[in-house]
Parts: sequence; structure tokens; C-alpha cells
Amino acid sequence: MNSVFKQFLRLPSNFETFRRFYTPRRALLYVPGDDVKKITKTESLDVDCVAMDCEDGVAINKKDVARETIRGILDKGKPNKSRKYDWGVRANSIDSGLCEEDLKSLLTAKNLPDTVLLPKVQNCDEIKWFSDKVSSIISGNNSVNLIIYIETAMSFINLPSICKTAVDLSKNSKFRPCALVYGGDDFVASIGAIKTEENTETLYARQKLVLVAKAYNLQAIDMVYIKYKDLEGLKKQSEQGLHMGFTGKQVIHPGQVPVVQNAFLPTSSQVEWAQGLLKSFKEHQKTGKGAFTYRGSMIDMPTMKQAQNIIEIVNLAQK
Amino acid sequence: MNSVFKQFLRLPSNFETFRRFYTPRRALLYVPGDDVKKITKTESLDVDCVAMDCEDGVAINKKDVARETIRGILDKGKPNKSRKYDWGVRANSIDSGLCEEDLKSLLTAKNLPDTVLLPKVQNCDEIKWFSDKVSSIISGNNSVNLIIYIETAMSFINLPSICKTAVDLSKNSKFRPCALVYGGDDFVASIGAIKTEENTETLYARQKLVLVAKAYNLQAIDMVYIKYKDLEGLKKQSEQGLHMGFTGKQVIHPGQVPVVQNAFLPTSSQVEWAQGLLKSFKEHQKTGKGAFTYRGSMIDMPTMKQAQNIIEIVNLAQK
Amino acid sequence: MNSVFKQFLRLPSNFETFRRFYTPRRALLYVPGDDVKKITKTESLDVDCVAMDCEDGVAINKKDVARETIRGILDKGKPNKSRKYDWGVRANSIDSGLCEEDLKSLLTAKNLPDTVLLPKVQNCDEIKWFSDKVSSIISGNNSVNLIIYIETAMSFINLPSICKTAVDLSKNSKFRPCALVYGGDDFVASIGAIKTEENTETLYARQKLVLVAKAYNLQAIDMVYIKYKDLEGLKKQSEQGLHMGFTGKQVIHPGQVPVVQNAFLPTSSQVEWAQGLLKSFKEHQKTGKGAFTYRGSMIDMPTMKQAQNIIEIVNLAQK
Repeated sequence: MNSVFKQFLRLPSNFETFRRFYTPRRALLYVPGDDVKKITKTESLDVDCVAMDCEDGVAINKKDVARETIRGILDKGKPNKSRKYDWGVRANSIDSGLCEEDLKSLLTAKNLPDTVLLPKVQNCDEIKWFSDKVSSIISGNNSVNLIIYIETAMSFINLPSICKTAVDLSKNSKFRPCALVYGGDDFVASIGAIKTEENTETLYARQKLVLVAKAYNLQAIDMVYIKYKDLEGLKKQSEQGLHMGFTGKQVIHPGQVPVVQNAFLPTSSQVEWAQGLLKSFKEHQKTGKGAFTYRGSMIDMPTMKQAQNIIEIVNLAQK
Repeated sequence: MNSVFKQFLRLPSNFETFRRFYTPRRALLYVPGDDVKKITKTESLDVDCVAMDCEDGVAINKKDVARETIRGILDKGKPNKSRKYDWGVRANSIDSGLCEEDLKSLLTAKNLPDTVLLPKVQNCDEIKWFSDKVSSIISGNNSVNLIIYIETAMSFINLPSICKTAVDLSKNSKFRPCALVYGGDDFVASIGAIKTEENTETLYARQKLVLVAKAYNLQAIDMVYIKYKDLEGLKKQSEQGLHMGFTGKQVIHPGQVPVVQNAFLPTSSQVEWAQGLLKSFKEHQKTGKGAFTYRGSMIDMPTMKQAQNIIEIVNLAQK
Repeated sequence: MNSVFKQFLRLPSNFETFRRFYTPRRALLYVPGDDVKKITKTESLDVDCVAMDCEDGVAINKKDVARETIRGILDKGKPNKSRKYDWGVRANSIDSGLCEEDLKSLLTAKNLPDTVLLPKVQNCDEIKWFSDKVSSIISGNNSVNLIIYIETAMSFINLPSICKTAVDLSKNSKFRPCALVYGGDDFVASIGAIKTEENTETLYARQKLVLVAKAYNLQAIDMVYIKYKDLEGLKKQSEQGLHMGFTGKQVIHPGQVPVVQNAFLPTSSQVEWAQGLLKSFKEHQKTGKGAFTYRGSMIDMPTMKQAQNIIEIVNLAQK
């Protein structure tokens, strides 16, 4: 990135490091951990992030099968090395009592997954528990990414402190917090709400999650759209999430992947607007003007940053 | 409840206790405490919850009349014993300076009300004050339910700590916190907003109240609809609250009761959907499938919990 | 104000003091600090609040010019003394490293501005820093108003503590916190959202800002509408803010001033409704009725307060 922009945009000093480790997670696809055939199928998909599931996608009497199956996959190593994508496992929640066995089984395979997805995190103690476990289970200097699921009323009350704890503990542990997931269906059940197509009933929760995620430099991954055949509805809900600041969305069917990954990229007209604006901004700064008009709008620094965001999203997704 | 479900749904271990004490409060009807005729009339109504009012429904020069009238009613004992409903009194707010006299007068009657409704709670100190007062005023091992009113900007800032304090103190006091009330008109006045028919301007406050209430296992009771002749508008606003997770609504006229109590029950098509889903879920779990499709949607545990909620609401209201 | 009302409305004991210092800021107009011609032009405008800008409206290589220009204006003294309005300067943010020089230059002029506008406040330490600086820089017993800008995700997490710190420190310092500004475009950039015309994507942030502002008796000033030629869109967005409880709006073009200042006054039908209600209320209180019907609505104290708010806004703006 142009250093003049960096100065103007007041980017954090660690921006280049941040960017180097940035993995887009526009679509986060679940695959049942006990179904080796379905897991193998995902290897040929152009999807940003795959989560081999031990939790809700696996029946209670198949948890062992899921652990063994995923461990077998991990032992063989990450497939499809030519393509950059996130290769993750979703453990069971800590309060289920099943998580420790998941971690012991999966994080001692011959190869680590890129990422552990931890559902139903409710408070800081669970982050502390996770930090201790991965530190003792993972060998050597290896580490994993952590994706935190926010799915209950209490999780939302504790949200800022959960994030702060994760960021703080990660400095001396073997995980890097990288995203929050909004567990929309669990949350709706937790507060006894009734889902509507517009999702007005969960605006507070979704927007709080985005705000807190961004305050701690985490990605924000939106709810599942369970009507998996309705791609038009999926597109609409994806765009709603994009406008709110979500960076990606959970998907539960391969057919949802291209719709979602496309929706979480700026449109070509947005990119054209942003490129034009950045060009115009540079010219006006040279002549010493702080604010100027562009296509009928009065522009100063904040709108500039929005334009820069659009260009960055495109660059990061194409990296 | 079927113990298999309990395991799957990870219900709290005290769920049966919770259920035994659960009183639906779909409609919470106010009646002026100084009007014995109106109070007597409510005894023949099929309403979940009656609040004999000492606060805003009573003029400042009638507070003594209200106390004496309600005390007389309490002395005679709860009418209509064949029907389960909540028999409550709304005291004046603590910061009005009138609350102590209200409690001393009403909680030393020959019979306790089921519930004390405490308006305009702003911070934890007021909960502490209330806890101390009821402990010293109520004789023996008796106790009352507490309904907490959240009506000002500062109350919303302190909301999680107000609830935590109430739950914590109740363990060694003579009250049980059971619900939060959203005092919509007072809140709108407190922040200088202007009410619209859609209530978009108070989404943040209402949804925060629901979320915090549910995190502490409290009911959430929605705003008054003051246009008491407009039953269609009342129905619409009731459904808006239901979708957000409110469990009931305040009403200021007997004519509003049936509309509201009906609106806070799931519809027959929701019940039919939920029953079908639970049946289908059991069958799939037996065959070891964690996720399955049902009427065009991909279902796993979270949607199951939403279906279970629907059945529970019906069961609890019909108890 | 009638003392009967005061008692009923439970106004703070310092209400008259509050009112004496209350300055309406319906429109807050920016003018580039390096452009003496534009600054001079604002002196003839009927605008509630002018902010001579050192921050985003001034190019990075013109910061010194802006300081000198504004200092020259301050030295000459507040123009247009016959008209009551707010005469302010916007400094650069503390984390830019430019703020101290701004304050040293502007707060040692022959005349103080009424108000310092401080952008991108993120935490309590920055309020402490500001408090220390103004105490040491401003001579004698003089003081300035402080307007705090909330523009990033982290600022929203820290919002209640930022306000509390400002109110607490102001008691022994040389500033009085009087308003929060919602820096909408910076905030949208901060969370990576995409602005839509309806602004649904920022309901959480805007409504949290209003709520916290009002809890600390601060004004709440809404986002800029950057399409400065679209006065119909400006009017609509102004009204949206008014309904939420905002007391004013930032403007970036003189042509926006009358639209905004008009929108942040109650309409004549609202005033007529409120006056009728207050009259009716007084009559009913005399006869000992706490609640009564008025134009099809059941009225008690909370609706009364809303009516009183409407009358107050008109009175304060016309002062």
C-alpha cells in the first residue's frame, strides 16, 4: 500500500503483518465430521473456509466416528496445497463436556488444522480454558487460528471481555483469534425470538457483534441461511450482512458457496466509484484542499477510508 | 419433558423447578389502585397478570387512597382462586420518596400480593434498597415476585448489573426477580425521541432489554399501546414484540387483553411445523444423522431448539 | 417553568441552571479553518453552531495555515454578538499527534472560542489528556464547552465510561462536556460497513450514542449527509435522527442549514397536540385522575413528559 495513504488513513503500524496473515472467509462451509465422502468432496470446491464439524452437524452417538474420521484426514495433510483456503475443525462446546476429547484427538494429528472453531463461548473463563488446553496439547511452536462462536444471550453481554481476553491471552499461547461467528439460530432460540425473513428482530445482536469484532480487528461471520435451495433469499441476506460490516457468512450446502463468496465482494460499480474517488483525492490533496466534491457528494477523509476499504477487500480476496 | 430431549437441548438442571414456578404474563393489565370498582371488575377477566397501581395511574393527591384501597383488597385475599394468574401491586419508584410507605402499607396486609412491580429502577443500589426493605417488612418465610421496570437512559446502561444484583441478592432475601418491563413511553421521554408507529427509533433499547432479560432467565414485557381503541395496531405491535423475544405486553384497558394474550401464543401453523420437526428430528437422531432436511430447510440442533420453544410456550400458557 | 409541573416531571434540581447554559445545536456547520473567506461568510448565516475546522476539512499540508487563520479570527472576537450561537473550533484528534499544537495555538488567542470539538475520542485516557491540557493552557477562570466525537468501533465500546469520565473531570477542570457527535462516515469505515440510504446498518451505533448521551445530559448530534445538493434526502435523514432522539445534525454546506434547523423543531401539529395535552392533564390532576383519555389515547405521566419535551425544545430554540 502506498505510504502516503497509510499516513492519511492512520493505519495501525502492524498493518502489513495483519495483511500477510489475513485469510478471507467469505464463505465458511460446514461438512459433517463423520462423513469422509462429503469431506473429500469439499476439496474440489473453490471455498474460502471449510469446517469439518464435530458439533451440531454430528449426531450424539457419532461423536467418536467424527473425531476418528477428521483425525485421519488431518494425518494425510492439507489437500489442495496450490489453493489458499482455511482448513478448520469445529469442536464441541466447552460446556458440553466433549471439547477436551475433541482437542486431544484433533490437535495431536500428524498435521494441525489451520483453525479451531469453538462454539457457544459464553464467558472469559472458557477462553482461558481453551488457551490452557491448546498450550498443553499442541506440540512445539505450532499454533492454530481461533474462531469464536457467539450464540447465546449471555455471550453478548460478555462479548467485549471475551474478545479482549482472547487477544490478550493469545500473545503467550498457541492460538490467534481471527473471527467471531454469529450463531443466529442458536441465539434466536436462546432469547425465544421468532425469525422473520427481514431479521429485524436480531439487528441489535448482529450489529453489536460486528462492532465488537472490528474493535478487536476480528472478522465477523454472519448467520446460516437454512433454506438451502433459495439462492435468491441467500443473496439478499448476504448483502444485508455485507452492508452491516460482516466479512463472510456460514453456509451449510456447497450450492451456497458461489452466491455467498460473490456477495461478499464489492460490486464493480462500487470498485469503479472507489478508484475514481482515490484518484480525485490525491489530486486535491496536492493542491492543498481537505474537502472536495465528487459526483455530487462532499468528500473528506472518512469517505476516503470507505473507498480504501472497498479496494482492500478486493485485493485481499484475490491474494 | 422427555429426558432424551433434555440431554440434547442441554436444559439447565433446574429446568423442572423453573417450569413449576413459571407464570405466563402475556398481558399485564394496570388498574388504578384508588378505584375499587375497577379493581373488582378485573377479577372476572381472563387475564394473566393484574397490577393494582399506586404509581402513574394514580394522581399525586390520591396516593393514600390507593394504598388503603389496595390494602383492603389484599386483606380479603386473592379472589378467583380457581384460576391461576398473577396478582400484583405497582409501587411508586424509589426516587419518588413514596416507595417505602407503599411497601410498608401493602406488604403488611393479611395476604401478600404475588408480585411487586417496581418502576424506574436505575441502578443496583435501588435493588439493594428494595431487597433490604422487603426482608425487613415481610414477615416469616413469605416472599414476593419482583418485576423490574427499565424506563430511562441510565437504566439501560446499568441493565446487566441491575439483573445480576437482583438474581444474586434474591438468594438470601424475600423476593424472586421474574421479569423486566420495557417502560416505552417513559424511555422515549427520557431520551427525547419521538414515537413512530413502527418503533424503529427504539429497536436498540427493546432488543437490549430482551437480550439481557433472557441472559438472566427473566421474562421480557413490552411497551403499552396507548391507542386503546385500535385493536389492529395493538395486534401488530404485539406480534412485533413476540418476534423480538418479548414474552408479554403491558395493557391499559380490559379490551386489549384478549388481543394481546392471543398474540403471545404461537400460531397453529407454527405449532404444526414445530411438532413435525421434533418428530422428524427424533427419527434422524436414531439413524445417526446430525443434520437433515425438513420442508426445504437444513435442520440441526439450533432450529430444533426454536421448535421446542414453540411447544413449551403453548404448554406453559395452558398449564 | 411552572413548579407544579416540575414536581410531576421530577426534573433535576439543577434544571434552571441546565436551561440557562443550554445552547441549541440543531445545525453544526463546518468551515475549513484555512479559508478566511468562507469563515467570514458564516458570520451572516442564521446557524446554531459553527465549527472552524483544523481536522478533516483541512489538507495535511495546510494545518499551520488553519491554526493561524483561526487564531486571527479568535483574536478579533466573536462576531455577530446580537445573535446567540455557538462559536467553536475543531481540533485534530489526539492520536494524530497534532492536537496539542492546535490547543496551544487556539486557546491562547485573545478570545476563547465557546467550544472545542474533539474528534475520534476512543477512551477515557484521551479525556484525561484533554482535561489536563485545557487546565494548563487556558488562563484564569475561563473555560470552554467540549463536544466529543464518537467515530470508531472501540469508542462505542468505551462510550459510557468516556461520558462518565468527562462529566466527572469537568467538575475540577476548565471544560464542560455538552454534546456527543456521531461520526457516521468514519464509523462506517471503521467497521467496514457499506452505507445505504436507510442507514439500517448503523441503527445500533446511532441509538446507543443517543441513549448514552441522554443518560449523561449531553446533546446528541447526528451524521453528515454528504450529498449536499439533495435537500429532500437531507430532510428525511434529519427527521430520522429527530425521531431517534438526536438534538441536531452536522452540516457541510450552508445550503443545508435551514433544512436541518427546521427539521429539528417539532412541527406545529406536534406543538398543538402537546399544548392541548398539558392543558387537559392539569384539569384531570385537579379532579384527582391519574390517567385519562385524550384524542383516543390513554394518557398518564410518561406521555405527559413527551408533550413537555416538545414544548421545551421550541422554547429553548427560541430563547
